[in-house]
Amino acid sequence: MLVVHKYGGTSVGDLERIENVANRVIKAREAGQDIVVVVSAMSGETNKLISFAEHFTLTPAKKEMDMLLSSGERVTAALLSIALQAKGFDAVAMSGRQAGIVTDDVHTYARIESIDPSAMLSAIQEGKIVIVAGFQGINKDGSVTTLGRGGSDLSAVALAGALKADQCEIYSDVDGIYTTDPRIEPKAKKLDTISYDEMLELSSLGAKVLQNRSVELAKKLNIKLYAKSSFSDNEGTLITEESENMEEVLVSGVVLDKNQARVTLRGVSDRPGIAAEIFTMLAQEHINVDMIIQNVGTDGTTNLGFTVPQSEHLNAKRVMESFDHDIQGMDVDGHVCKVSVVGVGMKSHSGVAATAFSALAKNGINIQMISTSEIKVSMVIDEQYGELAIRALHDAYELDK
Amino acid sequence: MLVVHKYGGTSVGDLERIENVANRVIKAREAGQDIVVVVSAMSGETNKLISFAEHFTLTPAKKEMDMLLSSGERVTAALLSIALQAKGFDAVAMSGRQAGIVTDDVHTYARIESIDPSAMLSAIQEGKIVIVAGFQGINKDGSVTTLGRGGSDLSAVALAGALKADQCEIYSDVDGIYTTDPRIEPKAKKLDTISYDEMLELSSLGAKVLQNRSVELAKKLNIKLYAKSSFSDNEGTLITEESENMEEVLVSGVVLDKNQARVTLRGVSDRPGIAAEIFTMLAQEHINVDMIIQNVGTDGTTNLGFTVPQSEHLNAKRVMESFDHDIQGMDVDGHVCKVSVVGVGMKSHSGVAATAFSALAKNGINIQMISTSEIKVSMVIDEQYGELAIRALHDAYELDK
Repeated sequence: MLVVHKYGGTSVGDLERIENVANRVIKAREAGQDIVVVVSAMSGETNKLISFAEHFTLTPAKKEMDMLLSSGERVTAALLSIALQAKGFDAVAMSGRQAGIVTDDVHTYARIESIDPSAMLSAIQEGKIVIVAGFQGINKDGSVTTLGRGGSDLSAVALAGALKADQCEIYSDVDGIYTTDPRIEPKAKKLDTISYDEMLELSSLGAKVLQNRSVELAKKLNIKLYAKSSFSDNEGTLITEESENMEEVLVSGVVLDKNQARVTLRGVSDRPGIAAEIFTMLAQEHINVDMIIQNVGTDGTTNLGFTVPQSEHLNAKRVMESFDHDIQGMDVDGHVCKVSVVGVGMKSHSGVAATAFSALAKNGINIQMISTSEIKVSMVIDEQYGELAIRALHDAYELDK
Repeated sequence: MLVVHKYGGTSVGDLERIENVANRVIKAREAGQDIVVVVSAMSGETNKLISFAEHFTLTPAKKEMDMLLSSGERVTAALLSIALQAKGFDAVAMSGRQAGIVTDDVHTYARIESIDPSAMLSAIQEGKIVIVAGFQGINKDGSVTTLGRGGSDLSAVALAGALKADQCEIYSDVDGIYTTDPRIEPKAKKLDTISYDEMLELSSLGAKVLQNRSVELAKKLNIKLYAKSSFSDNEGTLITEESENMEEVLVSGVVLDKNQARVTLRGVSDRPGIAAEIFTMLAQEHINVDMIIQNVGTDGTTNLGFTVPQSEHLNAKRVMESFDHDIQGMDVDGHVCKVSVVGVGMKSHSGVAATAFSALAKNGINIQMISTSEIKVSMVIDEQYGELAIRALHDAYELDK
C-alpha cells in the first residue's frame, strides 16, 4: 500500500513537531506502508520571508518571490529526512524539481503540468521513505515556481495521482471536517465522510482545512483524501466520491463567511449587455465577485445584487459610480455576512431551503439575498446575526445528532 | 567590462546590509560594468540550520545537509535581486543549478566539474544584473551539492572563469590583505598587491580573508582577484600573478597560527619505510599533519618532528604509541604555535630566514622547529610568545614602512 502524507506548517512548526511527524511516519511505515511525505515550510517561515521582501518593495517580482519562498519547504524536507535517518529509517529529501514536478510559467500561482514520478518510484523501490518539499516545482525553463498559498496540499494530491497512491492523508492541527465551526457552535460534529463536491462548497465558503484546488484535483483524479490531525490519533474525515449512502444525509454542514459586502443596484437599464459590462469592469479592477443575483423589476428595469470581499466594497462602489447613467440607485453594505447550508442530499430531497429560511425567520433574522446551487443554499444577512444563524441552522438540520 | 562580485555572510547579514550591497552593485553598474553577483547566506543562517540538523543527530547524511544548507544562499540571492529591482534595476536571481554549475558527487565538499554560463550570459545580454546563490551546484543526478565552508568564494572565482570576467571582487568585512593581523600588530599595513602564491601561504596559515581553494583556482585560471570591504570605499588588495615589481619586496606578511601542537619522535629506527608507515597511519586516523621535519641522528637513528591541529594532539600521541618498538622517545607539546614569514622576494634574496631567526633570538624566543619553502619560513615556538614574535618579525622586515 502506497500512501502520500502531507504535513502543514503547524504540524512541522518546530523541531519537536518535526520529530513527532517522523514518529507518525515511522508508525505507518512499520504498519507496512510505502510512504511519500509532502511538507510545508515551518509555520511563520513563509510570512517572515515575505516581510523580508516587503522591506524592499511591496511589489517584488514574482519570479524572485518563488526562489525566496520555495526555500522554506526545502528546509523542512531536509530536516524531516534527517530526523527519520536518525531513527534508523532510510529516507531521502527531494525538492519539487527532484520529485519531477513541472509547472506552467505563472510564478507564485503556477499550475502543475506534469509529474515524472520515476525518481520517487526508484527511491521507494530501494525501500526509502521519500520526503518532498511541497508548494513548488520548476517550469520548462528550469526556474523555480510555487503553487500559491496552500499549494503543498496540491503537491500532495498531484503526487498521489502520479504515483497511483492508494490514498492521500492531509495532516493539520484540525482533526477533520466538522458540521460547522466548533468555535461558533460547540455541538459541531466531526464528519466521517464527505463528498468532493460538498468539500468544495465548504472550503470555498471559508472552511480552511483543505485548499480548494487540491480538492478539485482529488475529485478529478478520484483520489481518496483524508483530513487528519498530526496531534491526535483520531480517525479524521474521508473526502471521496459521492455514494448513495451519503444522499441519505440531507445536510453535511453549515458555514459562515464574514468576509462579504453586498452591493445592490436598483433600476438597472434593461439593455442587452449591461451585466456583462458591469462584471467585466469589476474583473478588470481585480475585484472578486462571489454571489450574483438578478431579478426582473416592474418598470422595464432590473435589480442586480452581488457580493464582494469586504476590503473591496469601496472599490466596487467607485466602479459602479461610472455606471450612473444606467442605474437609478445603489446600496452598498459592508456589514453583511453569508451563511450557507451544504449537502449532496439536497439533490434528492425537497424542502431543504425552506427549513433554512424558517430557521432564520424564527430567530428574527432578515434574509437580504438568497442564492442556491444543486448542493448549497447561501443567504446574505446582517453580519451581527452570523453566529446566531449558524447555531440556528445547525439545530434545524439536527447536525449534532 | 564584466565583473564578478562576491558578498560574504557579514556583508549580507541583515536587510539594511543587503540594501547597502544593492547600492554598491548599482554604483558599479552605473560606472558601466556588467555584473554577476555571488552571495553567501545571511550570517548566522548556516549555523542555525546546522544546529537544527544536530537536534536530530550529530551525523546527519551529507546529501540532506546539502539540501538544507543550500537554502540560505538562495534566500539572499532572491532578496538582493528584489532589492535591485525595487531600485529600478533589472536583475535576476539564480540558484547554483540555474547558473549552470555542475559538481562531482562529494556532498558537503563537492568540486565544480563544469559550468555552462549560457543562462547567465543571455541574462547579461538582456541588460540584467545576475545574482547567483553561492556555495552550491548540482551533481550529474540533479541532487543539490555544496562546496564546503567558504564555498561561495569558490563559486565566484569559478563563475568569473566560465564567464571570462575581467576581474573578481571578494567583499567581506575586512578591507584587504594586511602585512599581519592588525589585532596583534596595530602597525600592520594593507597590501596593494600580493601574488597568488603568497596569498595561498597566508591563507593556509590562517589569514581568513579568502578561502584557499578559491585562490588556487584563481591562480590556475589567472583571474584578477580583489579582496575588498563592503563597508568602506577603500581600494582593497589585488591578488594576481607574480611580477618583477613584487620581487623587490622581500616579505609581504607575517602570520600566526595558534592551532598547532608539536610531536617529536627521538631515536626512530632508520629502516626504510618507517616514515611512510607513521604518516599513513596518521592519515587513516584523519589527523591532518602540517609541518614535517626529519633530521639524521648520530647513532643510526633519526629524529622526526611534525605538527598537528591542537585538537588532534592526544589522538596523534595514541597513534604514535603503536610504534613503541621503533621509537626511543616521544615528546608531545600542545602549547606551541607557528609563526611564518611569507614573500616571493625570498626567491631572489638571501638572508631572509636569518633575519627572522635573529629577530626572535633578540626577544629571547626559542625556536623549536623550522621549515622553509621557496617563499616561506615557518617557525614553531612556545605559544605564549606568538604575538610577541609577530610584532618582532613585522618590525624586523619593516613591514610598516
